[in-house]
Amino acid sequence: MDFAECFPVYNRLGKEEQSLLMSGVVFRKIKKGTIIRGGANDCTGLVLICSGQLRAYIVSDEGKEVTIYRLLDRDVCLLSASCMMPSMQFDVTVTAEKDTEAWIIPIKVYKPLMDSSAQIANYTNELLCTRFTEVMWLIEQILWKSFDKRLALFLIDECNIEDTSILHITHEQIASHLGKAREVVTRMLKYFHNEGVVRLTRGAVIVTDHNKLKKIAGL
Amino acid sequence: MDFAECFPVYNRLGKEEQSLLMSGVVFRKIKKGTIIRGGANDCTGLVLICSGQLRAYIVSDEGKEVTIYRLLDRDVCLLSASCMMPSMQFDVTVTAEKDTEAWIIPIKVYKPLMDSSAQIANYTNELLCTRFTEVMWLIEQILWKSFDKRLALFLIDECNIEDTSILHITHEQIASHLGKAREVVTRMLKYFHNEGVVRLTRGAVIVTDHNKLKKIAGL
Repeated sequence: MDFAECFPVYNRLGKEEQSLLMSGVVFRKIKKGTIIRGGANDCTGLVLICSGQLRAYIVSDEGKEVTIYRLLDRDVCLLSASCMMPSMQFDVTVTAEKDTEAWIIPIKVYKPLMDSSAQIANYTNELLCTRFTEVMWLIEQILWKSFDKRLALFLIDECNIEDTSILHITHEQIASHLGKAREVVTRMLKYFHNEGVVRLTRGAVIVTDHNKLKKIAGL
Repeated sequence: MDFAECFPVYNRLGKEEQSLLMSGVVFRKIKKGTIIRGGANDCTGLVLICSGQLRAYIVSDEGKEVTIYRLLDRDVCLLSASCMMPSMQFDVTVTAEKDTEAWIIPIKVYKPLMDSSAQIANYTNELLCTRFTEVMWLIEQILWKSFDKRLALFLIDECNIEDTSILHITHEQIASHLGKAREVVTRMLKYFHNEGVVRLTRGAVIVTDHNKLKKIAGL
Protein backbone atom coordinates (compact mmCIF):
# COMPACT_ATOMS: atom_id res chain seq x y z
CA MET A 1 0.00 0.00 0.00
CA ASP A 2 1.15 3.48 -0.89
CA PHE A 3 2.47 5.59 2.00
CA ALA A 4 0.25 8.55 1.16
CA GLU A 5 -2.75 6.23 1.32
CA CYS A 6 -1.87 5.12 4.85
CA PHE A 7 -1.23 8.62 6.12
CA PRO A 8 -4.48 10.52 5.54
CA VAL A 9 -3.01 13.93 6.39
CA TYR A 10 -0.29 13.59 3.73
CA ASN A 11 -2.15 15.36 0.94
CA ARG A 12 -2.89 18.34 3.16
CA LEU A 13 0.82 18.98 3.83
CA GLY A 14 3.18 21.35 2.08
CA LYS A 15 5.73 20.12 -0.50
CA GLU A 16 8.61 20.51 1.95
CA GLU A 17 6.88 18.54 4.71
CA GLN A 18 5.92 15.85 2.22
CA SER A 19 9.48 15.38 1.03
CA LEU A 20 10.80 15.33 4.61
CA LEU A 21 8.36 12.51 5.36
CA MET A 22 9.09 10.58 2.18
CA SER A 23 12.84 10.68 2.75
CA GLY A 24 12.53 9.41 6.35
CA VAL A 25 9.78 6.83 6.16
CA VAL A 26 10.64 3.11 6.24
CA PHE A 27 8.63 0.12 4.98
CA ARG A 28 8.85 -2.89 7.24
CA LYS A 29 7.58 -6.46 7.40
CA ILE A 30 6.94 -7.41 11.00
CA LYS A 31 6.75 -11.11 11.86
CA LYS A 32 3.85 -12.36 13.96
CA GLY A 33 4.87 -12.33 17.62
CA THR A 34 7.29 -9.41 17.32
CA ILE A 35 7.17 -7.02 20.27
CA ILE A 36 6.84 -3.50 18.87
CA ARG A 37 6.66 -1.72 22.20
CA GLY A 38 7.86 -3.60 25.27
CA GLY A 39 7.36 -0.98 27.93
CA ALA A 40 7.27 2.76 28.46
CA ASN A 41 10.65 3.29 26.81
CA ASP A 42 10.55 1.55 23.44
CA CYS A 43 10.14 4.22 20.83
CA THR A 44 10.17 2.95 17.27
CA GLY A 45 8.07 5.73 15.80
CA LEU A 46 4.59 6.00 14.33
CA VAL A 47 3.52 2.64 12.86
CA LEU A 48 1.04 2.87 9.95
CA ILE A 49 -0.42 -0.57 9.31
CA CYS A 50 -0.85 -1.58 5.65
CA SER A 51 -1.99 -5.09 6.47
CA GLY A 52 -1.87 -7.30 9.52
CA GLN A 53 -2.88 -6.92 13.14
CA LEU A 54 -1.32 -5.42 16.27
CA ARG A 55 -2.49 -5.92 19.83
CA ALA A 56 -2.03 -3.39 22.64
CA TYR A 57 -2.33 -4.80 26.13
CA ILE A 58 -1.40 -4.22 29.73
CA VAL A 59 0.18 -6.77 32.03
CA SER A 60 -0.36 -7.01 35.78
CA ASP A 61 2.41 -7.63 38.31
CA GLU A 62 1.25 -11.24 38.33
CA GLY A 63 1.56 -11.51 34.55
CA LYS A 64 -2.17 -11.29 33.80
CA GLU A 65 -2.85 -9.69 30.41
CA VAL A 66 -5.75 -7.50 29.34
CA THR A 67 -6.20 -6.33 25.74
CA ILE A 68 -6.65 -2.57 25.51
CA TYR A 69 -7.33 -2.47 21.80
CA ARG A 70 -6.41 -4.02 18.47
CA LEU A 71 -5.05 -2.22 15.43
CA LEU A 72 -5.99 -3.45 11.97
CA ASP A 73 -5.40 -2.39 8.34
CA ARG A 74 -5.00 1.39 7.98
CA ASP A 75 -4.84 1.93 11.76
CA VAL A 76 -1.95 3.87 13.22
CA CYS A 77 -0.03 2.90 16.34
CA LEU A 78 0.76 5.99 18.37
CA LEU A 79 2.01 4.22 21.49
CA SER A 80 5.14 3.17 19.64
CA ALA A 81 5.90 6.90 19.41
CA SER A 82 4.94 7.82 22.98
CA CYS A 83 8.42 9.12 23.89
CA MET A 84 7.45 12.22 21.88
CA MET A 85 4.77 12.87 24.47
CA PRO A 86 6.32 13.08 27.93
CA SER A 87 2.90 13.34 29.61
CA MET A 88 2.02 9.87 28.40
CA GLN A 89 3.24 7.67 31.19
CA PHE A 90 1.95 4.15 31.07
CA ASP A 91 3.24 0.72 30.27
CA VAL A 92 1.34 -0.78 27.39
CA THR A 93 2.84 -3.60 25.37
CA VAL A 94 2.24 -3.77 21.62
CA THR A 95 2.90 -6.95 19.65
CA ALA A 96 2.14 -8.18 16.15
CA GLU A 97 -0.71 -10.67 16.37
CA LYS A 98 -0.42 -11.48 12.68
CA ASP A 99 2.34 -11.00 10.10
CA THR A 100 2.15 -7.26 9.51
CA GLU A 101 3.33 -4.86 6.81
CA ALA A 102 3.68 -1.27 7.91
CA TRP A 103 5.18 2.11 7.19
CA ILE A 104 7.24 3.45 10.08
CA ILE A 105 7.73 7.19 10.55
CA PRO A 106 10.78 7.44 12.84
CA ILE A 107 10.59 9.83 15.81
CA LYS A 108 13.41 11.99 14.46
CA VAL A 109 11.23 12.66 11.39
CA TYR A 110 7.82 12.90 13.05
CA LYS A 111 8.68 14.95 16.13
CA PRO A 112 9.97 18.09 14.35
CA LEU A 113 7.01 17.92 11.95
CA MET A 114 4.56 17.69 14.85
CA ASP A 115 6.29 20.60 16.58
CA SER A 116 6.04 22.86 13.55
CA SER A 117 2.88 21.74 11.72
CA ALA A 118 -0.58 22.32 13.22
CA GLN A 119 -1.94 19.83 10.66
CA ILE A 120 0.24 17.02 11.96
CA ALA A 121 -0.21 17.99 15.61
CA ASN A 122 -3.99 17.92 15.16
CA TYR A 123 -3.80 14.62 13.32
CA THR A 124 -1.89 13.24 16.32
CA ASN A 125 -4.62 14.67 18.52
CA GLU A 126 -7.25 12.81 16.55
CA LEU A 127 -5.37 9.52 16.94
CA LEU A 128 -5.12 10.12 20.69
CA CYS A 129 -8.85 10.80 20.92
CA THR A 130 -9.70 7.62 19.04
CA ARG A 131 -7.59 5.50 21.38
CA PHE A 132 -8.89 7.40 24.40
CA THR A 133 -12.44 6.57 23.31
CA GLU A 134 -11.57 2.89 23.01
CA VAL A 135 -10.05 2.88 26.47
CA MET A 136 -13.06 4.65 28.02
CA TRP A 137 -15.26 2.05 26.37
CA LEU A 138 -13.12 -0.69 27.87
CA ILE A 139 -13.47 0.86 31.34
CA GLU A 140 -17.22 0.78 31.07
CA GLN A 141 -17.07 -2.83 29.90
CA ILE A 142 -14.86 -3.76 32.80
CA LEU A 143 -16.97 -1.87 35.34
CA TRP A 144 -20.42 -2.72 34.17
CA LYS A 145 -20.19 -5.45 31.53
CA SER A 146 -23.80 -5.13 30.65
CA PHE A 147 -24.00 -4.16 27.02
CA ASP A 148 -21.99 -7.08 25.64
CA LYS A 149 -24.47 -9.42 27.33
CA ARG A 150 -27.44 -7.46 26.02
CA LEU A 151 -26.09 -7.44 22.47
CA ALA A 152 -25.22 -11.15 22.59
CA LEU A 153 -28.71 -11.98 23.81
CA PHE A 154 -30.22 -9.84 21.09
CA LEU A 155 -28.23 -11.61 18.36
CA ILE A 156 -29.17 -15.04 19.72
CA ASP A 157 -32.85 -14.07 19.77
CA GLU A 158 -32.67 -12.75 16.21
CA CYS A 159 -31.00 -15.95 14.95
CA ASN A 160 -33.75 -17.99 16.58
CA ILE A 161 -36.49 -15.75 15.20
CA GLU A 162 -35.13 -15.71 11.65
CA ASP A 163 -33.89 -19.31 11.84
CA THR A 164 -30.54 -18.31 10.30
CA SER A 165 -27.04 -17.23 11.27
CA ILE A 166 -27.06 -14.45 8.68
CA LEU A 167 -28.83 -11.43 10.11
CA HIS A 168 -29.74 -8.76 7.58
CA ILE A 169 -29.84 -5.88 9.99
CA THR A 170 -28.02 -2.56 10.21
CA HIS A 171 -26.10 -1.33 13.25
CA GLU A 172 -28.59 1.53 13.35
CA GLN A 173 -31.47 -0.90 13.67
CA ILE A 174 -29.77 -2.84 16.44
CA ALA A 175 -29.10 0.46 18.20
CA SER A 176 -32.78 1.37 18.18
CA HIS A 177 -33.64 -2.08 19.48
CA LEU A 178 -31.31 -1.71 22.41
CA GLY A 179 -31.68 2.02 23.08
CA LYS A 180 -27.99 2.70 22.42
CA ALA A 181 -26.01 5.01 20.13
CA ARG A 182 -25.10 3.44 16.80
CA GLU A 183 -21.39 3.99 17.49
CA VAL A 184 -21.65 1.90 20.63
CA VAL A 185 -23.24 -0.98 18.72
CA THR A 186 -20.62 -0.78 15.96
CA ARG A 187 -17.81 -0.83 18.48
CA MET A 188 -19.23 -3.86 20.29
CA LEU A 189 -19.83 -5.71 17.01
CA LYS A 190 -16.22 -5.04 16.01
CA TYR A 191 -15.17 -6.46 19.35
CA PHE A 192 -17.28 -9.58 18.71
CA HIS A 193 -15.73 -9.74 15.24
CA ASN A 194 -12.21 -9.63 16.70
CA GLU A 195 -13.18 -12.38 19.12
CA GLY A 196 -14.29 -14.55 16.18
CA VAL A 197 -17.93 -14.60 17.25
CA VAL A 198 -19.43 -12.76 14.28
CA ARG A 199 -18.41 -11.71 10.79
CA LEU A 200 -19.45 -8.25 9.58
CA THR A 201 -20.39 -7.59 5.97
CA ARG A 202 -22.21 -4.71 4.33
CA GLY A 203 -25.79 -5.04 5.50
CA ALA A 204 -25.36 -8.23 7.50
CA VAL A 205 -24.07 -9.63 10.77
CA ILE A 206 -23.12 -13.30 10.47
CA VAL A 207 -22.89 -15.30 13.68
CA THR A 208 -19.95 -17.67 13.26
CA ASP A 209 -19.62 -19.08 16.78
CA HIS A 210 -22.93 -19.67 18.53
CA ASN A 211 -21.37 -21.30 21.59
CA LYS A 212 -19.07 -18.38 22.26
CA LEU A 213 -21.98 -15.99 21.78
CA LYS A 214 -24.05 -17.92 24.34
CA LYS A 215 -21.13 -17.77 26.75
CA ILE A 216 -20.94 -13.98 26.36
CA ALA A 217 -24.67 -13.77 26.99
CA GLY A 218 -24.21 -15.76 30.17
CA LEU A 219 -26.41 -18.64 28.96
CA MET B 1 -5.26 34.46 39.12
CA ASP B 2 -3.94 36.00 35.92
CA PHE B 3 -5.04 34.29 32.69
CA ALA B 4 -1.49 34.02 31.35
CA GLU B 5 -0.52 32.23 34.55
CA CYS B 6 -3.27 29.60 34.05
CA PHE B 7 -2.45 29.01 30.40
CA PRO B 8 1.18 27.91 30.32
CA VAL B 9 1.52 28.10 26.55
CA TYR B 10 0.44 31.78 26.48
CA ASN B 11 3.91 33.27 26.61
CA ARG B 12 5.06 31.15 23.71
CA LEU B 13 2.36 32.53 21.39
CA GLY B 14 2.58 35.37 18.90
CA LYS B 15 1.13 38.83 19.66
CA GLU B 16 -1.86 38.25 17.37
CA GLU B 17 -2.76 34.91 18.93
CA GLN B 18 -2.38 36.41 22.40
CA SER B 19 -4.78 39.24 21.67
CA LEU B 20 -7.29 36.86 20.06
CA LEU B 21 -7.23 34.83 23.26
CA MET B 22 -7.44 37.84 25.57
CA SER B 23 -10.43 39.28 23.74
CA GLY B 24 -12.38 36.00 23.85
CA VAL B 25 -11.58 34.62 27.28
CA VAL B 26 -14.18 34.80 30.07
CA PHE B 27 -13.69 34.70 33.84
CA ARG B 28 -16.37 32.74 35.65
CA LYS B 29 -17.34 31.78 39.18
CA ILE B 30 -18.88 28.32 39.17
CA LYS B 31 -21.01 27.30 42.15
CA LYS B 32 -20.40 23.94 43.80
CA GLY B 33 -22.69 21.36 42.23
CA THR B 34 -22.85 23.01 38.79
CA ILE B 35 -22.77 20.54 35.91
CA ILE B 36 -20.11 21.74 33.47
CA ARG B 37 -20.48 18.88 31.02
CA GLY B 38 -23.62 16.80 31.19
CA GLY B 39 -23.00 14.38 28.32
CA ALA B 40 -21.22 14.09 25.02
CA ASN B 41 -22.80 17.25 23.64
CA ASP B 42 -22.21 20.01 26.19
CA CYS B 43 -19.41 22.14 24.89
CA THR B 44 -18.56 25.13 27.05
CA GLY B 45 -14.95 25.43 26.01
CA LEU B 46 -11.60 24.90 27.68
CA VAL B 47 -11.92 25.43 31.46
CA LEU B 48 -8.74 26.65 33.19
CA ILE B 49 -9.16 26.27 36.93
CA CYS B 50 -7.81 29.12 39.08
CA SER B 51 -9.13 27.67 42.33
CA GLY B 52 -11.64 25.02 43.24
CA GLN B 53 -12.23 21.42 42.23
CA LEU B 54 -13.93 19.63 39.35
CA ARG B 55 -14.83 15.97 39.18
CA ALA B 56 -15.04 13.94 35.98
CA TYR B 57 -17.02 10.73 36.24
CA ILE B 58 -18.94 8.16 34.26
CA VAL B 59 -22.41 6.90 35.09
CA SER B 60 -23.72 3.40 34.38
CA ASP B 61 -27.17 2.64 32.97
CA GLU B 62 -28.19 1.86 36.53
CA GLY B 63 -26.95 5.24 37.79
CA LYS B 64 -23.76 3.94 39.40
CA GLU B 65 -20.99 6.57 39.35
CA VAL B 66 -17.24 6.09 39.03
CA THR B 67 -14.78 8.97 39.31
CA ILE B 68 -12.41 9.11 36.36
CA TYR B 69 -10.28 11.94 37.69
CA ARG B 70 -10.36 15.18 39.63
CA LEU B 71 -9.15 18.56 38.44
CA LEU B 72 -7.61 20.97 40.94
CA ASP B 73 -5.98 24.42 40.89
CA ARG B 74 -4.18 25.12 37.61
CA ASP B 75 -5.59 22.01 35.94
CA VAL B 76 -7.36 22.35 32.60
CA CYS B 77 -10.62 20.63 31.68
CA LEU B 78 -10.46 19.46 28.08
CA LEU B 79 -13.63 17.36 28.13
CA SER B 80 -15.71 20.51 28.26
CA ALA B 81 -14.25 21.28 24.83
CA SER B 82 -14.57 17.78 23.35
CA CYS B 83 -16.87 18.86 20.50
CA MET B 84 -13.70 20.25 18.89
CA MET B 85 -12.46 16.67 18.66
CA PRO B 86 -14.96 14.51 16.79
CA SER B 87 -13.01 11.31 17.47
CA MET B 88 -13.63 11.74 21.19
CA GLN B 89 -16.85 9.88 21.71
CA PHE B 90 -17.68 9.14 25.29
CA ASP B 91 -20.06 10.35 27.92
CA VAL B 92 -18.21 11.75 30.88
CA THR B 93 -19.94 14.11 33.27
CA VAL B 94 -17.99 16.99 34.82
CA THR B 95 -19.30 18.85 37.85
CA ALA B 96 -17.88 21.40 40.28
CA GLU B 97 -17.13 19.60 43.53
CA LYS B 98 -16.21 22.88 45.24
CA ASP B 99 -16.92 26.52 44.44
CA THR B 100 -14.60 27.12 41.52
CA GLU B 101 -13.11 30.15 39.79
CA ALA B 102 -11.98 29.57 36.25
CA TRP B 103 -11.03 31.11 32.94
CA ILE B 104 -13.08 29.78 30.04
CA ILE B 105 -11.73 29.81 26.50
CA PRO B 106 -14.82 29.44 24.29
CA ILE B 107 -14.71 26.92 21.43
CA LYS B 108 -15.11 29.65 18.80
CA VAL B 109 -11.85 31.17 20.08
CA TYR B 110 -9.89 28.00 20.81
CA LYS B 111 -10.77 25.89 17.77
CA PRO B 112 -9.35 28.24 15.07
CA LEU B 113 -6.23 28.76 17.20
CA MET B 114 -5.74 25.01 17.57
CA ASP B 115 -6.25 24.55 13.80
CA SER B 116 -3.62 27.12 12.92
CA SER B 117 -1.08 27.00 15.75
CA ALA B 118 1.15 23.96 16.26
CA GLN B 119 1.96 25.32 19.74
CA ILE B 120 -1.67 25.19 20.83
CA ALA B 121 -2.36 21.89 19.07
CA ASN B 122 0.61 20.32 20.87
CA TYR B 123 -0.46 21.84 24.16
CA THR B 124 -3.87 20.18 23.64
CA ASN B 125 -2.02 16.97 22.90
CA GLU B 126 -0.20 17.20 26.18
CA LEU B 127 -3.47 17.68 28.09
CA LEU B 128 -4.93 14.65 26.34
CA CYS B 129 -1.90 12.54 27.25
CA THR B 130 -2.12 13.57 30.90
CA ARG B 131 -5.79 12.54 31.12
CA PHE B 132 -5.10 9.39 29.13
CA THR B 133 -2.44 8.44 31.66
CA GLU B 134 -4.87 8.97 34.53
CA VAL B 135 -7.46 6.79 32.84
CA MET B 136 -4.96 4.01 32.15
CA TRP B 137 -3.97 4.15 35.79
CA LEU B 138 -7.61 3.83 36.77
CA ILE B 139 -8.01 0.76 34.53
CA GLU B 140 -5.14 -0.94 36.27
CA GLN B 141 -6.62 -0.03 39.65
CA ILE B 142 -9.97 -1.43 38.63
CA LEU B 143 -8.48 -4.59 37.15
CA TRP B 144 -5.86 -5.41 39.67
CA LYS B 145 -6.29 -3.14 42.69
CA SER B 146 -3.07 -4.25 44.24
CA PHE B 147 -0.87 -1.21 44.58
CA ASP B 148 -3.28 0.87 46.67
CA LYS B 149 -3.30 -1.96 49.20
CA ARG B 150 0.45 -2.28 49.14
CA LEU B 151 0.97 1.46 49.61
CA ALA B 152 -1.63 1.64 52.40
CA LEU B 153 0.04 -1.24 54.22
CA PHE B 154 3.42 0.41 53.81
CA LEU B 155 2.19 3.70 55.31
CA ILE B 156 0.57 1.90 58.25
CA ASP B 157 3.80 -0.01 58.93
CA GLU B 158 5.84 3.18 58.77
CA CYS B 159 3.50 4.98 61.20
CA ASN B 160 3.84 2.08 63.62
CA ILE B 161 7.60 1.93 63.25
CA GLU B 162 8.11 5.67 63.71
CA ASP B 163 5.28 6.00 66.21
CA THR B 164 3.93 9.09 64.41
CA SER B 165 1.43 10.12 61.74
CA ILE B 166 3.97 12.45 60.12
CA LEU B 167 6.21 10.44 57.83
CA HIS B 168 9.32 12.28 56.66
CA ILE B 169 9.85 10.29 53.53
CA THR B 170 10.07 11.18 49.85
CA HIS B 171 7.98 9.62 47.10
CA GLU B 172 11.25 8.37 45.63
CA GLN B 173 12.05 6.49 48.84
CA ILE B 174 8.60 4.92 48.98
CA ALA B 175 9.05 3.91 45.34
CA SER B 176 12.27 2.07 46.10
CA HIS B 177 10.61 0.35 49.05
CA LEU B 178 7.80 -0.95 46.89
CA GLY B 179 9.68 -1.52 43.64
CA LYS B 180 7.56 0.98 41.71
CA ALA B 181 8.22 4.05 39.58
CA ARG B 182 8.15 7.33 41.53
CA GLU B 183 5.35 8.66 39.33
CA VAL B 184 3.15 5.74 40.29
CA VAL B 185 3.70 6.43 44.00
CA THR B 186 3.00 10.15 43.54
CA ARG B 187 -0.21 9.44 41.67
CA MET B 188 -1.45 7.03 44.33
CA LEU B 189 -0.54 9.44 47.15
CA LYS B 190 -2.49 12.19 45.37
CA TYR B 191 -5.42 9.79 45.18
CA PHE B 192 -5.13 9.11 48.93
CA HIS B 193 -4.92 12.86 49.43
CA ASN B 194 -8.13 13.44 47.43
CA GLU B 195 -9.82 10.75 49.49
CA GLY B 196 -8.84 12.61 52.68
CA VAL B 197 -6.60 9.82 53.90
CA VAL B 198 -3.27 11.66 53.85
CA ARG B 199 -2.03 15.21 53.54
CA LEU B 200 1.03 15.86 51.36
CA THR B 201 3.59 18.53 52.24
CA ARG B 202 7.11 19.12 51.02
CA GLY B 203 9.13 16.25 52.43
CA ALA B 204 6.34 14.61 54.42
CA VAL B 205 3.27 12.40 54.11
CA ILE B 206 0.84 13.00 56.97
CA VAL B 207 -1.72 10.29 57.65
CA THR B 208 -4.97 12.05 58.59
CA ASP B 209 -7.41 9.13 58.62
CA HIS B 210 -5.97 5.91 59.99
CA ASN B 211 -9.26 4.01 59.83
CA LYS B 212 -9.78 4.74 56.16
CA LEU B 213 -6.18 3.76 55.45
CA LYS B 214 -6.69 0.43 57.23
CA LYS B 215 -9.81 -0.13 55.18
CA ILE B 216 -7.86 0.48 51.94
CA ALA B 217 -5.22 -1.98 53.14
CA GLY B 218 -7.93 -4.55 53.71
CA LEU B 219 -7.22 -4.78 57.47
